[in-house]
Amino acid sequence: MILIKGGIIVTAERQYRSDILCNDAGLIAQIGPDLECPTGCEIVDAAGLLVMPGGIDPHTHMEMPFMGTTASDDFYTGTAAGLAGGTTSLIDFVIPGQGQSLYEAWQEWRMKAEKAASDYGFHVAVTHWDDRVHADMGRLVTEAGVNSFKHFMAYKNALMIDDAIFLRSMQRAAELGALCTVHAENGDAVSFLQAQLLAQGETGPHAHALSRPPGVEGEAAQRAITLAALRDTPLYVVHVSTREATEAIAAARLKGLKVYGEVLPQHLVFDETVYHDPDWLIAARHVMSPPFREKSHQQALWGGLMSGQLQTTATDHCCFCREQKERGRDDFTRIPNGVPGIEERMSVLWHHGVATGRLTPEQFVALTSTNTARIFNLYPRKGCIAVGSDADLVLWDAQATRTVTVDALHQNVDYTLYEGMTLTGLARKTISQGVVTWDDGLLRAERGKGRYIRRPAFAPGGASSV
Amino acid sequence: MILIKGGIIVTAERQYRSDILCNDAGLIAQIGPDLECPTGCEIVDAAGLLVMPGGIDPHTHMEMPFMGTTASDDFYTGTAAGLAGGTTSLIDFVIPGQGQSLYEAWQEWRMKAEKAASDYGFHVAVTHWDDRVHADMGRLVTEAGVNSFKHFMAYKNALMIDDAIFLRSMQRAAELGALCTVHAENGDAVSFLQAQLLAQGETGPHAHALSRPPGVEGEAAQRAITLAALRDTPLYVVHVSTREATEAIAAARLKGLKVYGEVLPQHLVFDETVYHDPDWLIAARHVMSPPFREKSHQQALWGGLMSGQLQTTATDHCCFCREQKERGRDDFTRIPNGVPGIEERMSVLWHHGVATGRLTPEQFVALTSTNTARIFNLYPRKGCIAVGSDADLVLWDAQATRTVTVDALHQNVDYTLYEGMTLTGLARKTISQGVVTWDDGLLRAERGKGRYIRRPAFAPGGASSV
Amino acid sequence: MILIKGGIIVTAERQYRSDILCNDAGLIAQIGPDLECPTGCEIVDAAGLLVMPGGIDPHTHMEMPFMGTTASDDFYTGTAAGLAGGTTSLIDFVIPGQGQSLYEAWQEWRMKAEKAASDYGFHVAVTHWDDRVHADMGRLVTEAGVNSFKHFMAYKNALMIDDAIFLRSMQRAAELGALCTVHAENGDAVSFLQAQLLAQGETGPHAHALSRPPGVEGEAAQRAITLAALRDTPLYVVHVSTREATEAIAAARLKGLKVYGEVLPQHLVFDETVYHDPDWLIAARHVMSPPFREKSHQQALWGGLMSGQLQTTATDHCCFCREQKERGRDDFTRIPNGVPGIEERMSVLWHHGVATGRLTPEQFVALTSTNTARIFNLYPRKGCIAVGSDADLVLWDAQATRTVTVDALHQNVDYTLYEGMTLTGLARKTISQGVVTWDDGLLRAERGKGRYIRRPAFAPGGASSV
Amino acid sequence: MILIKGGIIVTAERQYRSDILCNDAGLIAQIGPDLECPTGCEIVDAAGLLVMPGGIDPHTHMEMPFMGTTASDDFYTGTAAGLAGGTTSLIDFVIPGQGQSLYEAWQEWRMKAEKAASDYGFHVAVTHWDDRVHADMGRLVTEAGVNSFKHFMAYKNALMIDDAIFLRSMQRAAELGALCTVHAENGDAVSFLQAQLLAQGETGPHAHALSRPPGVEGEAAQRAITLAALRDTPLYVVHVSTREATEAIAAARLKGLKVYGEVLPQHLVFDETVYHDPDWLIAARHVMSPPFREKSHQQALWGGLMSGQLQTTATDHCCFCREQKERGRDDFTRIPNGVPGIEERMSVLWHHGVATGRLTPEQFVALTSTNTARIFNLYPRKGCIAVGSDADLVLWDAQATRTVTVDALHQNVDYTLYEGMTLTGLARKTISQGVVTWDDGLLRAERGKGRYIRRPAFAPGGASSV
Repeated sequence: MILIKGGIIVTAERQYRSDILCNDAGLIAQIGPDLECPTGCEIVDAAGLLVMPGGIDPHTHMEMPFMGTTASDDFYTGTAAGLAGGTTSLIDFVIPGQGQSLYEAWQEWRMKAEKAASDYGFHVAVTHWDDRVHADMGRLVTEAGVNSFKHFMAYKNALMIDDAIFLRSMQRAAELGALCTVHAENGDAVSFLQAQLLAQGETGPHAHALSRPPGVEGEAAQRAITLAALRDTPLYVVHVSTREATEAIAAARLKGLKVYGEVLPQHLVFDETVYHDPDWLIAARHVMSPPFREKSHQQALWGGLMSGQLQTTATDHCCFCREQKERGRDDFTRIPNGVPGIEERMSVLWHHGVATGRLTPEQFVALTSTNTARIFNLYPRKGCIAVGSDADLVLWDAQATRTVTVDALHQNVDYTLYEGMTLTGLARKTISQGVVTWDDGLLRAERGKGRYIRRPAFAPGGASSV
Repeated sequence: MILIKGGIIVTAERQYRSDILCNDAGLIAQIGPDLECPTGCEIVDAAGLLVMPGGIDPHTHMEMPFMGTTASDDFYTGTAAGLAGGTTSLIDFVIPGQGQSLYEAWQEWRMKAEKAASDYGFHVAVTHWDDRVHADMGRLVTEAGVNSFKHFMAYKNALMIDDAIFLRSMQRAAELGALCTVHAENGDAVSFLQAQLLAQGETGPHAHALSRPPGVEGEAAQRAITLAALRDTPLYVVHVSTREATEAIAAARLKGLKVYGEVLPQHLVFDETVYHDPDWLIAARHVMSPPFREKSHQQALWGGLMSGQLQTTATDHCCFCREQKERGRDDFTRIPNGVPGIEERMSVLWHHGVATGRLTPEQFVALTSTNTARIFNLYPRKGCIAVGSDADLVLWDAQATRTVTVDALHQNVDYTLYEGMTLTGLARKTISQGVVTWDDGLLRAERGKGRYIRRPAFAPGGASSV
Repeated sequence: MILIKGGIIVTAERQYRSDILCNDAGLIAQIGPDLECPTGCEIVDAAGLLVMPGGIDPHTHMEMPFMGTTASDDFYTGTAAGLAGGTTSLIDFVIPGQGQSLYEAWQEWRMKAEKAASDYGFHVAVTHWDDRVHADMGRLVTEAGVNSFKHFMAYKNALMIDDAIFLRSMQRAAELGALCTVHAENGDAVSFLQAQLLAQGETGPHAHALSRPPGVEGEAAQRAITLAALRDTPLYVVHVSTREATEAIAAARLKGLKVYGEVLPQHLVFDETVYHDPDWLIAARHVMSPPFREKSHQQALWGGLMSGQLQTTATDHCCFCREQKERGRDDFTRIPNGVPGIEERMSVLWHHGVATGRLTPEQFVALTSTNTARIFNLYPRKGCIAVGSDADLVLWDAQATRTVTVDALHQNVDYTLYEGMTLTGLARKTISQGVVTWDDGLLRAERGKGRYIRRPAFAPGGASSV
Repeated sequence: MILIKGGIIVTAERQYRSDILCNDAGLIAQIGPDLECPTGCEIVDAAGLLVMPGGIDPHTHMEMPFMGTTASDDFYTGTAAGLAGGTTSLIDFVIPGQGQSLYEAWQEWRMKAEKAASDYGFHVAVTHWDDRVHADMGRLVTEAGVNSFKHFMAYKNALMIDDAIFLRSMQRAAELGALCTVHAENGDAVSFLQAQLLAQGETGPHAHALSRPPGVEGEAAQRAITLAALRDTPLYVVHVSTREATEAIAAARLKGLKVYGEVLPQHLVFDETVYHDPDWLIAARHVMSPPFREKSHQQALWGGLMSGQLQTTATDHCCFCREQKERGRDDFTRIPNGVPGIEERMSVLWHHGVATGRLTPEQFVALTSTNTARIFNLYPRKGCIAVGSDADLVLWDAQATRTVTVDALHQNVDYTLYEGMTLTGLARKTISQGVVTWDDGLLRAERGKGRYIRRPAFAPGGASSV
């Protein structure tokens, strides 16, 4: 049992001074000014700090087998790093193997994730279609607590599905009350451009960006929305990185469609020039999809977040170490796609968003946890500071400043995108299930302490009103 | 002291079952499940009801002198009617006379409003410009608790200002931390079309709509936004009625500008065909500005509300009785512009918005009170259910149905736009300052009980993050 | 040799009074006021008539095998009907069979077309991809006078290609200087909706429109444009029928991309209500793809034509008689898609476009021949009134009026969409290769007189500047 | 009489090899291949040259009194410089003094222009409104050959009119069949920003651009279009310099409105960085309104020209010498607004437009003369190569290259914007009224040889179909 005293609570709606009592069941038991400290209760001093819901990262890939290797952060190291950054839950992706049963893949992933230090859930990817997929989707929703499915319009000959499968999956998800999410890039176009670039001798990381120009994302987002609109199916677009996709989402929402967009902080901070770094490795370490964009796209993303047209932030956390990145030394298409970030996300967004005046602390909470919890039906268990909610909290120091360096981070990877960047705003303490797991530099993450969180379905065709 | 028991609290963020204790200071004293009833405390049974913040109507014109007559609802009858409909606060407009001091006008309006039955505040209109206006704006913000100023781009030769004055007022408001609001219609164009229509012998109410086509609003909204964007000044557009204005607001927000839009429920429900009613009086009773539009604009307004690009609902409540409307029998430009609606607003929005599935109850709360309170800096005193907030609440019966008829309403006017319309969702009880003022058909409004609410300024250039 | 005397020449640029002498080689030999009549030269009186380039219809399907049957107009009857309507050239489509060589298919079509009464050319469809297709495209361009290839994004499991093939074909066409054309509808979506509708028992013609909603076209147009933009490949979108596709094309052009759009007059005149005709046959006779749309789309198409953002008009002429349409009596997906129109096109566009004031006669010429000739590199041989151009002309009576009835038409099909419609503006005489082939009601079309017109390639990557 | 032999004629529609015989009346007498040379006829060798209609510049200000000084090029020097650059006609602006009769002003300008070396016409500005303006407009159209009126939305307290006057003038112009043109910048906003910048001590040329940001133009263009659309009045927007205005025009055209846009080549070539030149004079010499913009606007202008959404090019030629520019040394608002360019226009557009592949030679002709002639009803007298048209021609060397330097130019001003720029494409010979007036470096302009060109009205409400 802990009593958080003297902080300012920040929710998506407001700030107010209040104490919070967390019970031994890991729940918020009481909220009020000047709460008395029960016997045996530890007091956590929050004076001068903001008390916010712990971050939820709805887009991570821990120990994912991908492009011939496996992401280096596992569910333990990755969730532990999340705690160090103020993130107390994540939703990872179950990616079935070729023709594998979705349900079996989910079981496999459940096992991998048992070592997690914080709570977690799963989206399950639909990468092919047959009767078993149809059946598995039902079982996953009704028995396994999965209420979201992922669809890749990119990664041809691997994860990519065509529009016919996407439509079937949308229909099935809608009848189950599950949410469809989509990686929106036109895989045929990417594949075509990759081949063309390689044929022209363009093998370096800069060609990665050239093979995935903004229109390729904008087109796919527009297409996914059009397909979803045929039957008014809710849709969540992951890692929106372009003006084109942002505008497509905003336009759809203005028609009353339930379309959501997710932003990765790295897309707000870096631009395409990273691929021109003379050091191959530095450039390769920025290889992810979608790639970093020309600067003007950042304005669109900020506008989307500020106006509520883009609703969540995530990381697409997917770590590959030097030797893994080296696999693509002679061929950019073989550089494992992915970057770390779960530990830096909250600070990066605070620094570039709140400290610059673009976002209020309330919006920060909405964008790092509340909206995510609502969209994925974790609310009010997560993303909420209310009696009965999970005691997943971060005590935030809005004024503190530090310079990022990989040595001080806990992710199981040998670099950080933000090396040398000085950020204002950091997690002083992170509380997960009512326990202080990050204590001002001391990480007390416990292997296997994380719980699998079942997410109930919405009503058929339904979705959150975010 | 009252204890509201057994209801489901709905805020802009969530629904949860809890009781609410309101103290004798008219504040919310306690929120929790199964609260004990203090001695002497009245119990209000909320079983089966939703407990929501009382409505805030940020756009009314009580006893306003206009077009040679005076609006028939005064501050007492109007606020009382509001209570009967679940609305517990309003923000009315101080409209200075030709060359009158803004501060003196505000004093005059304060006196008129002392009879109010519920809490109220004021926007003050800037209808001309000189040093005294500049000085009065400062005094109003710092001494009088006014944090919003109104600007008319329409009503040529009466209230209309040109862009030069608008810019000066914006600059002044920004330095004071006050919000600019705007009636966006191009008054020159309206005046030109009015003259042309009259010259063509078009004197009936249908010409009212023809004299104010959608582009005239869209243009003005676009212009106001452009002017505001010059110095990144926040802007609130009243009574948005067109697709054009909605899209202009959404586009501005996507650029990160702080622009807000307000919708009147009547624009969601009625279209331009009302002006073709063979009964002149029925048509005339729909004469307001902006007028009712071709049906497709309604989709845009709904999309704006559903997606968060339009943030508030109001009524522009401004009543004129039959003999007043008759003033324009031979000349549509002399029909007093205005319609009633403060009493019907909440039900109309619930019926057409929530009961149809377009909006969630949470969005309903945001659109009827929370967003308004935040935008006009009344939050968390109003628009919020939290300990310490004003005990302004409505106990809502989401299933109840009634057929609207003017006889059952309390507005001091001889008609309702919604005559004969059957609506689902109504206020069972309205609590203002902790007192039940509307009790399932029994109106206990008390003359003079309403308080003038001072609204603090924002930081210079600042605004809410809605 | 004929001398056309006393008419007013109308080109895409201007109108002027002049005579035209056509020589025995079928060319325009002289243009000038008051030309003298050479010995043996027939005089054609054009007093009171407009002399315009004969129409070019770039989208017809004569005797096409489709959906288990064959279009009823063959190259003779179809071109003859064209002459009766003022159209002197067409570009038909070679549609290779499953896996058939493009070149062989072209040879086959050449043979079928030898009976044509007027000049003709071919687009060749790319419906699959392999090395032979690649080679055949080259041979078609360099040896066979084909400079345009057609791509179907619809007709799944039949003609539809995926984006990968489309991109390869674009690349190949660009290097050959050929133009890509596209039928833009998302075939996966159509197929999905068809199945869903049939499963719901919706078997009638109205379901045809429901299975191909506007977004399905808009999405595909947007996608095709995005793919083309990757390498700045010119693109021609056939039968644009929606606001969405029109806006996508206009936006692309405003970025400087070479994108063209074609409109069918029937889409300007009819709307989706045709599918609700209680007479199944009438409804079925309107079944074509894309289907007729809600009326507001017509405004967008007109705006596109008036502003130059859509450049050509065509017919998609593809006739099926009653018993052919009856094949789909129990299943709308089996109704052969197609409608007649080559004979009515010019009159319909004049009546609804020029007579209403939307278009000038100069624009009419641009939209019926000149732009088409330029886009498909037939200019100035066709679509032009200049010395040396083909003497393909229509003598147009701008004031004459007639009521359309199938009995008076020459198409080999048992209905006309325009039955009973009174149209102003008709072809008095049509001159093909310098010979009067339609003489005020008398059709003198000659079987086999039509010539195959080789169309040279553009420079690689090039296109016309229309 | 001259015979132009061996050139390639380029019109807006096509290129073809032909000779041209010009008679002594200054008209084109004959066009044909291998024309025989009549006795006494001079032969002009056009081998290797393109023969195009002489340029028409619809936007010049010769010897205009403005901002306390007078533009340095008079009608003789300015038209002579035009001839040296291939421009054979211009349309200048009559700017009435405060309250001056429009007709008298026109008479005054006629007198000033009698010294012109090439043909010219006038737009007349409407800068105030009363009955005399109304009457003068009629007289100007019916008696004086004026068919276009200019409206300034900028230059507050000088030329600016409000929307009420603009609407009256539009209505009057429409009934007369005259075209409204507009300088679209919000003068109130400019004035406000100027005052604010000066108050902040920003007195240099860079503040000129800051005082006229892109939105200020976009807003005004949007407003002018909205006003014009009220009664479907045609509208011509001068010197479009922003993406915003371009998109507003394109959107209006797509609705079928007759809206035209004009581009100045300098806006295609220079960007806002010119105002940051450390040399005050260089920066000041770029001061014109609208100012040079951030580079991305250039893409929009090019897109507009390439797609036909912007139709003409002009110069806004208005020269001020060093001592004139110096008037604003301490106050940017006193720098006379204006730059030279009539002599460079054609070369600049060819070099940056045609030589780069953005435009075809046919489009170049459309954009430099044909469209202008059609829009202002000079066609086919001007802007056309046809028998009977004025023999105003330019013999263009598409390959020749030169480096621009003020010493080699003929404008009566001490600088050129293009100093040191190497341009491909230049006028070898310019023929005006059938006489060679510019002969490969030798200027034979004759004072007073230019004629005033009366431009007939359109039908009421009418306009060209460009």
